[in-house]
Amino acid sequence: MDWQIDADGKLTLRVANRTLFEHSPQAPAVFVGRGVETVEMYRGNFDISDYVEERVALRDARLTQNADGSARIELARHADTPAELVITAQRTANGVHLALSGDASLNRLWWRVPAQADEHVWGCGEQMSYFDLRGRHFPLWTSEPGVGRDKSTHLTWQADVTSKSGGDYYHTNYPQPTFVSSQKYCLHAQTTAYADFDFRHDGWHELQFWAVPERLEFIVADDFVTLVERISMRFGRQPTLPDWVMNGAILGLKNGRDHAQEIFEASRAAGVAVSGLWCEDWAGIRQTSFGKRLFWDWRWNDTRYPGHAEWLAQLKQDGVRFLGYVNPYLCNDGTLYQEALAADYLAKHADGSQYLVDFGEFDCGVVDFTNPAAARWFEERVIRGEMLDRGLDGWMADFGEYLPTDLVLANGVDAMLMHNAWPTLWAEVNARAIAAAGRTGDALFFMRAGYTGVQAHCPLLWAGDQSVDFTRHDGLQTVICGALSSGLLGNAYHHSDIGGYTSLFGNVRTPELFQRWAEMAAFTPVMRTHEGNRPAENFQFWQDADVLAHFARMTRLFVALKPYVQGLIDEAAARGLPLQRPLFLHYEHDAATYAIQDQYLYGRDLLVAPVHAAGATQWSAYLPSGDAWTHLWSGVEYEGGQRVTVDAPLGEPPVFVRRGATNTAHWLDLVKAL
Amino acid sequence: MDWQIDADGKLTLRVANRTLFEHSPQAPAVFVGRGVETVEMYRGNFDISDYVEERVALRDARLTQNADGSARIELARHADTPAELVITAQRTANGVHLALSGDASLNRLWWRVPAQADEHVWGCGEQMSYFDLRGRHFPLWTSEPGVGRDKSTHLTWQADVTSKSGGDYYHTNYPQPTFVSSQKYCLHAQTTAYADFDFRHDGWHELQFWAVPERLEFIVADDFVTLVERISMRFGRQPTLPDWVMNGAILGLKNGRDHAQEIFEASRAAGVAVSGLWCEDWAGIRQTSFGKRLFWDWRWNDTRYPGHAEWLAQLKQDGVRFLGYVNPYLCNDGTLYQEALAADYLAKHADGSQYLVDFGEFDCGVVDFTNPAAARWFEERVIRGEMLDRGLDGWMADFGEYLPTDLVLANGVDAMLMHNAWPTLWAEVNARAIAAAGRTGDALFFMRAGYTGVQAHCPLLWAGDQSVDFTRHDGLQTVICGALSSGLLGNAYHHSDIGGYTSLFGNVRTPELFQRWAEMAAFTPVMRTHEGNRPAENFQFWQDADVLAHFARMTRLFVALKPYVQGLIDEAAARGLPLQRPLFLHYEHDAATYAIQDQYLYGRDLLVAPVHAAGATQWSAYLPSGDAWTHLWSGVEYEGGQRVTVDAPLGEPPVFVRRGATNTAHWLDLVKAL
Repeated sequence: MDWQIDADGKLTLRVANRTLFEHSPQAPAVFVGRGVETVEMYRGNFDISDYVEERVALRDARLTQNADGSARIELARHADTPAELVITAQRTANGVHLALSGDASLNRLWWRVPAQADEHVWGCGEQMSYFDLRGRHFPLWTSEPGVGRDKSTHLTWQADVTSKSGGDYYHTNYPQPTFVSSQKYCLHAQTTAYADFDFRHDGWHELQFWAVPERLEFIVADDFVTLVERISMRFGRQPTLPDWVMNGAILGLKNGRDHAQEIFEASRAAGVAVSGLWCEDWAGIRQTSFGKRLFWDWRWNDTRYPGHAEWLAQLKQDGVRFLGYVNPYLCNDGTLYQEALAADYLAKHADGSQYLVDFGEFDCGVVDFTNPAAARWFEERVIRGEMLDRGLDGWMADFGEYLPTDLVLANGVDAMLMHNAWPTLWAEVNARAIAAAGRTGDALFFMRAGYTGVQAHCPLLWAGDQSVDFTRHDGLQTVICGALSSGLLGNAYHHSDIGGYTSLFGNVRTPELFQRWAEMAAFTPVMRTHEGNRPAENFQFWQDADVLAHFARMTRLFVALKPYVQGLIDEAAARGLPLQRPLFLHYEHDAATYAIQDQYLYGRDLLVAPVHAAGATQWSAYLPSGDAWTHLWSGVEYEGGQRVTVDAPLGEPPVFVRRGATNTAHWLDLVKAL
Repeated sequence: MDWQIDADGKLTLRVANRTLFEHSPQAPAVFVGRGVETVEMYRGNFDISDYVEERVALRDARLTQNADGSARIELARHADTPAELVITAQRTANGVHLALSGDASLNRLWWRVPAQADEHVWGCGEQMSYFDLRGRHFPLWTSEPGVGRDKSTHLTWQADVTSKSGGDYYHTNYPQPTFVSSQKYCLHAQTTAYADFDFRHDGWHELQFWAVPERLEFIVADDFVTLVERISMRFGRQPTLPDWVMNGAILGLKNGRDHAQEIFEASRAAGVAVSGLWCEDWAGIRQTSFGKRLFWDWRWNDTRYPGHAEWLAQLKQDGVRFLGYVNPYLCNDGTLYQEALAADYLAKHADGSQYLVDFGEFDCGVVDFTNPAAARWFEERVIRGEMLDRGLDGWMADFGEYLPTDLVLANGVDAMLMHNAWPTLWAEVNARAIAAAGRTGDALFFMRAGYTGVQAHCPLLWAGDQSVDFTRHDGLQTVICGALSSGLLGNAYHHSDIGGYTSLFGNVRTPELFQRWAEMAAFTPVMRTHEGNRPAENFQFWQDADVLAHFARMTRLFVALKPYVQGLIDEAAARGLPLQRPLFLHYEHDAATYAIQDQYLYGRDLLVAPVHAAGATQWSAYLPSGDAWTHLWSGVEYEGGQRVTVDAPLGEPPVFVRRGATNTAHWLDLVKAL
């Protein structure tokens, strides 16, 4: 940590040859002020605007270097005005921490980080549209991701005008105020306030916060792999993925026991490797205009799933796990809501009255996880009592993004600050319930919502609700972007709904989409199908013998990968490396890899370039330089450092094996045996 | 002018019982700073964004009152920092002028005007969507108005995605940084900089400027009529409308001489009163994907209009004037462009190379009106030489909104500051050319673009390019809003394309739309038809005998109104009152009239409530209190202060005659004789 201040008052912080702070009275790095925000939520879609009343440069910097190596920087408007922000800088093992404390009247802070013109940046949570963040700004606020997410598409426009749900490129269930720079440092802001990271400027990145962050943390490393290891260490190693998920696909079925049993049997008969049945409708359903929705009263529905104990026992004998669904809300026409209300476990209006959130033609209470008794009740009474003890081996832990900003919580903290904190609280509730039951590493839950710290608790992300299509901003390819961005920040395990989820305005799933998605999913740690929001209108894999056979083959490929993937899981546990990795992670010398977001390395040895367009029979992929790559299906070897085009018929996802992989021959044999 | 500063540093300016400035260190009125704008233009549609680097309150105010009654206010950040803005306040006959001078480093200024919670505001130029501006903000930048202008409509979305042209509620050809408050004052900002007037706050209006304005001018009056008179005086009385326009409709025809002559004869034969033929294609055409466009080389096209002298003489004998079309651009495949280029009369790139503007599949040079020689050339060589001297009696003086912000002008002023100034320069060029020919008050030009000062030069506004429909933000009713808002600011004469203009994406004109529009136009000073941008796909009035008869009847009604309208024109000349007036202008005691924007008083005696929906057979109108109103067609009298519903079949536009009008009986007789 090297602080320098020159005669003109230019103050710089350099750490391991990187300039991490640069300030002068002429080019100040920090601006403070006040703003008045307007936040409107409609079913998880937020319309947020800001009226910035003041934004003032803090031009005067006063540096004090202490004997213990720390430094104190006081920032003021002018030499003769009092300091409005104090930075306490402390060297850490792999970087530096800048603790911030600001004047109480400030609710806006803008911080410039020196940038290089050709710098790339990645991260900011799970980003679905852009992996390389440079050239755009990213509001960081957990929300619905949007339907279409592209203002130039008719689908997005229809979603916008009918339900304000079209979304845009930056909308995500899982934002995080953390980015990785191609200068090989990571910057993390410790705050849950609304933030907006702006990477549009040539000379600096500008980070905006709607509260003074507790701390800015810089982590540096000499190479990207080490940097990612250190990032994972910072946010906490992810719980290990249960072994059983690699035994086959988890079939998503939501039409009661008979349906589930029937599809399961038909699938097995067709050669599908099945590891679990995921029946999200285990608690019952309700019909809305969006489609069939679940009944948010988290108790086994004996009408829809009769004879549950006997059935689950039978599934277990078949080597098949049973998964359900839960989220942190309770519908006000359910029994758990009444229990929670009576016990005072729900968030309230400022006047103390009950707060109900509109989730789309039904209303729910919000279990107040800031009240330890309420969290414990949800863990013990709901997750343990109604789910784990009733035989569930896992569930989708849905939502977490909807915390309204005008409700009142038990901990007394402004809901504007708790909104982003909610997904991690929700992950903790799930993780604690599983831990209390001694099921960590065996029971599985997966989340779409996230924020700083979710890594340490949630064993598996899922990519949220893609549209059932190949579109640029809401289709298959967005899942790759989500895996790569979240993976850099310590989320080793990622998966998605095979075939996508959202079908609206006549947009329906094709057999081809399902197949291309399954081909990609085979090269992720979890294969899981979903019937979608409107099952009856959309293609399901069991409806076509060819598709079923293709799917069966992909599940066999998935199972065949298990030994390799087990190695990746061990690596994730030991080092925090994600299973799906951006190409540059292992090829940092090859700048052509820095912005690639539709391919990934699956571990060190496989390069996966999923087909993400309809009608493709060939596919082009970039192979990083410095290695040679063998096309998995043809056995043809290509030198890296070039873009190649290979045949990519259905059933042959473009995958390349690295020369020098311990078992190239094994891979080629493997696919022949499928 | 009463300046007060109290012990706590609260500074107020009161003029005739209105608080026009209120400032304290805790609630500062003025903020200054710097911003970096991004301005992208695509065919007159601007995408403008701002990066505000600093916005600093000037909390310290130092008042000096001079012996001559003027005052000087120095505004600084703090008591011990230098003044960054100096206000010199001077009492005027009917208000106060605040001259501003700011530090040269400032390019952003925000100014708060004290507001009352229930205050209404109007004006800001010609606003097409909202007459009462309260509750919204209004960027003030002359531009294309947009197609659809409503992000919730499919038409707007299609315009946006195909050509960035959908627009929004505030887009207008004619903005002006001037508003009228229901506190009976007018605030005008003397500047041509980009501005944004924000009326969303309860306690203040916030005016944003991208340069320190030269002056803020307040005009006060005890009643609205006097206020409007004073506003008109401030901006200059409008030239008087030629008498001949009241002799009938001006027929807009754009398919050559034979077509014009044929439609003219058919119209006359059907009883249509015709005052002129407006052949915008007089200079020739070109075909583009938008539709037929004109050939922007402003010379008589003998192929399209052969035998022009003989034909115009014959029209003159028939009592019919001939009108053409011109705009301030020259297509680079025309001869005038070459002349102007050779004489160095065109605006340039910063590097001195020729600057061409894309107008939609053809490119044009911009005649640089800041070069007096270029302006004179356009006046003498083009308008006088090619138009007036060739027999034209008038023209649409189109455009004025497209000045790109990155070109270089002869006067050396930043194009960001000249952009808004352009429409008025363009009006002056037209007015001077007409004056030099001694044709003022006889030759007519009409404009859609405008800005401060256009009033003094342009004798007639036209409402721009409505869509051929009844939509809320781009249809018939927007014309009323345009007339009312611009009328308050000294534009007495307003009219529109009967039947609308823009037909895109399958949106086409219906016979009913044409008829409802003609019914409204009869109660405006000019009736003029337009074939629209795609004549062949749209209904034309001569294509249906019933419509033609209806149109003929409306033109006869229009002519019958001539004596009354002549009185209004005299009133406009003497007092600056617009012909079309908001109800509150004469009924300020009736607050229910303050936000009405789909009705108007036509002079003092007629209330017009145009039908602006398809399929209507009845129509409801609000009648202001304090008068009784006789329905023109039924003769039924209603007391004011209520909303009434009347029959409104085609041919009977809802119009009411004020009791006490000198000639109520005359009106009723008049319509019977039609």
